[in-house]
Amino acid sequence: MNRIAVRAAIHIAAVFAIYLSVAMLIPAAVDLYYDNDDWQSFAFTAMFMGGLALAVALATQGRTPPANTRFGFLLVNFLWITLAIAGAVPFMTSSLDLSVTDAFFESVSGVTTTGSTVINGLDSAPPGVLIWRSLLSFMGGLGVIALGLFLLPFLNIGGVSYFKIESSDIEDRPFERFQTFTVSLIGIYTVLVVACTISYVAAGMDGFHAINHAMSTVATGGFSTHDTSFVRYADNPAILWTGIVFMFIGGLPFSIMILFAVRGRLDALRDPQIRVYAGYCIVFAVAVAIYLRINMGMPFFTALTHSTFNLMSIITTAGFASDDYSLWGPFAIGCIFVATFLGGCSGSTTGGIKAYRFLVLFELLSNGLRRLIYPNTVIPVRYGDRTVPPEMQSAVVLFIASFMVLWAITIVLLSATGLDFITAVTGSLTSLTNVGPGLGPIIGPVGNFSSLPDTAKWICSAAMLLGRLEILAVLVIFTPTFWGR
Amino acid sequence: MNRIAVRAAIHIAAVFAIYLSVAMLIPAAVDLYYDNDDWQSFAFTAMFMGGLALAVALATQGRTPPANTRFGFLLVNFLWITLAIAGAVPFMTSSLDLSVTDAFFESVSGVTTTGSTVINGLDSAPPGVLIWRSLLSFMGGLGVIALGLFLLPFLNIGGVSYFKIESSDIEDRPFERFQTFTVSLIGIYTVLVVACTISYVAAGMDGFHAINHAMSTVATGGFSTHDTSFVRYADNPAILWTGIVFMFIGGLPFSIMILFAVRGRLDALRDPQIRVYAGYCIVFAVAVAIYLRINMGMPFFTALTHSTFNLMSIITTAGFASDDYSLWGPFAIGCIFVATFLGGCSGSTTGGIKAYRFLVLFELLSNGLRRLIYPNTVIPVRYGDRTVPPEMQSAVVLFIASFMVLWAITIVLLSATGLDFITAVTGSLTSLTNVGPGLGPIIGPVGNFSSLPDTAKWICSAAMLLGRLEILAVLVIFTPTFWGR
Repeated sequence: MNRIAVRAAIHIAAVFAIYLSVAMLIPAAVDLYYDNDDWQSFAFTAMFMGGLALAVALATQGRTPPANTRFGFLLVNFLWITLAIAGAVPFMTSSLDLSVTDAFFESVSGVTTTGSTVINGLDSAPPGVLIWRSLLSFMGGLGVIALGLFLLPFLNIGGVSYFKIESSDIEDRPFERFQTFTVSLIGIYTVLVVACTISYVAAGMDGFHAINHAMSTVATGGFSTHDTSFVRYADNPAILWTGIVFMFIGGLPFSIMILFAVRGRLDALRDPQIRVYAGYCIVFAVAVAIYLRINMGMPFFTALTHSTFNLMSIITTAGFASDDYSLWGPFAIGCIFVATFLGGCSGSTTGGIKAYRFLVLFELLSNGLRRLIYPNTVIPVRYGDRTVPPEMQSAVVLFIASFMVLWAITIVLLSATGLDFITAVTGSLTSLTNVGPGLGPIIGPVGNFSSLPDTAKWICSAAMLLGRLEILAVLVIFTPTFWGR
Repeated sequence: MNRIAVRAAIHIAAVFAIYLSVAMLIPAAVDLYYDNDDWQSFAFTAMFMGGLALAVALATQGRTPPANTRFGFLLVNFLWITLAIAGAVPFMTSSLDLSVTDAFFESVSGVTTTGSTVINGLDSAPPGVLIWRSLLSFMGGLGVIALGLFLLPFLNIGGVSYFKIESSDIEDRPFERFQTFTVSLIGIYTVLVVACTISYVAAGMDGFHAINHAMSTVATGGFSTHDTSFVRYADNPAILWTGIVFMFIGGLPFSIMILFAVRGRLDALRDPQIRVYAGYCIVFAVAVAIYLRINMGMPFFTALTHSTFNLMSIITTAGFASDDYSLWGPFAIGCIFVATFLGGCSGSTTGGIKAYRFLVLFELLSNGLRRLIYPNTVIPVRYGDRTVPPEMQSAVVLFIASFMVLWAITIVLLSATGLDFITAVTGSLTSLTNVGPGLGPIIGPVGNFSSLPDTAKWICSAAMLLGRLEILAVLVIFTPTFWGR
């Protein structure tokens, strides 16, 4: 069984790599359009990788994959690793000439929609490379929504969403409906990116930068085409509010939009995680805005704009910065640190712990406290007007526990590479939650990850991938049970 | 019911306060012996508080307390608050003349065996005050062992220990056996303090300092009679290893020693949490020692001594320091930060998450990963050769979840008082885990909490009390269910 599963997973990953090779023609075309010689490296890489992927695909074809959870986990890991490796190659072959470590880090950061960068001089980087980075975010965001909506809920990880619980049509006829849902997902996602591009342009952003930023805004990726991220647009509230709106949308469960597109129904809006997500966005943004008004003497609208942009950017795990918020004072920094854990909704492009897990956790906590007094009472764990099955409860708890343990391990490992306390603590956290920037002078909002030791970059890359695949979907591969029998 | 329970709890707390008033005669006697006028303030406080407590005790007597969990929780909270308030009064009336905030903080830090201090100039402080601080640690340590052994397991919090699971004699005849166990607990605890005192003296410590340090070593409290803690003994490995041995014993489940004393059996040594606790103590101490040897060029034995002393001090949540470990380099600091979460065994004087919770957590995690592959398998959660009942599993998970949420809230609150990132993050953590020192220039190993804003001191005091009472035992009091019906 195992060998068949691995072979089938490799086959699908190879077919996926062929599509990725085709995608490389986009940056090639962009470079050609802007008359940049880098188009050749993209075209060559596309051909070489496409050929290689085709050979692997042909060599592994033939067997039908086993339709079980084990294969699901294997495939998810293979697809993301393929995406990360294929994404890295153009960074090495392009005129940026990144090292293997830097190229892999940058690619992982893109496909996990983290948005940390090791590239200095983005403003003068070849346009093809910039568009490739944005495309990686775009694909990573699309992939993770698909994962969260279609696959993880069936693997019992990370999917307490109304979409899964409600959509009897998916559960009854998964493969019939699959295509409809995929097409509408891609359609909606693309429409959002186009709408975001138009809004950025309308607000005064240059077209090329608008396309790039739109892709990584909707994907809540955080890659910018400027070394200083959105600081360049700090005085343009229209651009910042455009970013805020589309980052917020990126943090919503895409099930809502898909159900609306497919069935014309908006009742998924009742999903209680949306209220929690919107709730903590507003609380953090307003609290920090008031603090900035008082502490930094900013005019209130300016304070609200920057507070909302940067807090929303952290909460949705995008990671853009419109200001050096590390200078905003202790309360703002405390809020930003805590906000790094939060994340958006399940079935969105965001990382982090996510609103529905907090909901389930609070429900578990309040039930647990009640049971301390009445030990023999059985109280169902509620999610909105439904009951959360025990395996979902357990998945939520396991995610949070493994998140904390992994965070601790990553802190120790990063410290061992020589990183200072703040960089190690926030660098590991921001990688695991796919946020992007950390705190402190090195990886803070105006810094980047380029000066980190190579070992630290590999550790962060691993943490980003683990965080993106909801941790458990990766850990499970490393258990003896997975490979047993 | 509620009014009777509250009244009965107040009655017991008042009787307890009478005993505390009597305990104040010890520092009075010490001051008298050292010819320090402070004896009057202790004697006066003892009389005044004793009288007041007696009046309250008389006014509330008569009703038998209801023997239910609700009353148990109420009593635990009342007793610790009483201890904290009664402990604070002498700091205000003594010649140190602390403010209400500082006195309460210092007292809470003592009775929760945290060991953070707001007193500058300990070396020249009146001996009565020093002995009072140590007594608070002593009583707090004794109280928390009693709590962990006798009460919390029956309240389904924090007590997966072989003691509870095994001791059929306790469960069958709790009140008959209660006295035997209490007497042997006090006996063992006192013998340990005496043995520790003698060892410190034999190793070269002055008698007065030895008694004080012994009390807060066995209680894993961390109060020192020197502003610089154990840095004064940095060149005396005999003193440091004495501290290491007794801190380690303080982190063991006292059930082992009690069972041995009462029944002559040592089979509780099989308790698997002991292996986990000893395991991570050794791993951290040796790893940091090797790092100090390589990175700081210390001779290996010196490196091992200081590494073991300080890491053991953090892991057992004592909080002494034999060196400014904030200068030991990134890896050591990363380890110390992570070690702050750990703690010792259940039924010990330590705080933190504790070894048995990590055991249950890893068991839950590995079961959970197995169930991702075989969703219909029911695998019991094991603790050694026993099965952990669901309500224990739930208590472990709830503790860790509420710990993390409380930590996040405390970080934001401390930041709001103007504390910098490192101080807010580590100050909240070290308070919740009852460790003592944090990191950074203010509350690090060579600093103290005196310069913190008053609000921050109250927040830390609350966090210390919450941490000491295993969080849930406090939170439950604030639920509507607790006061309902």
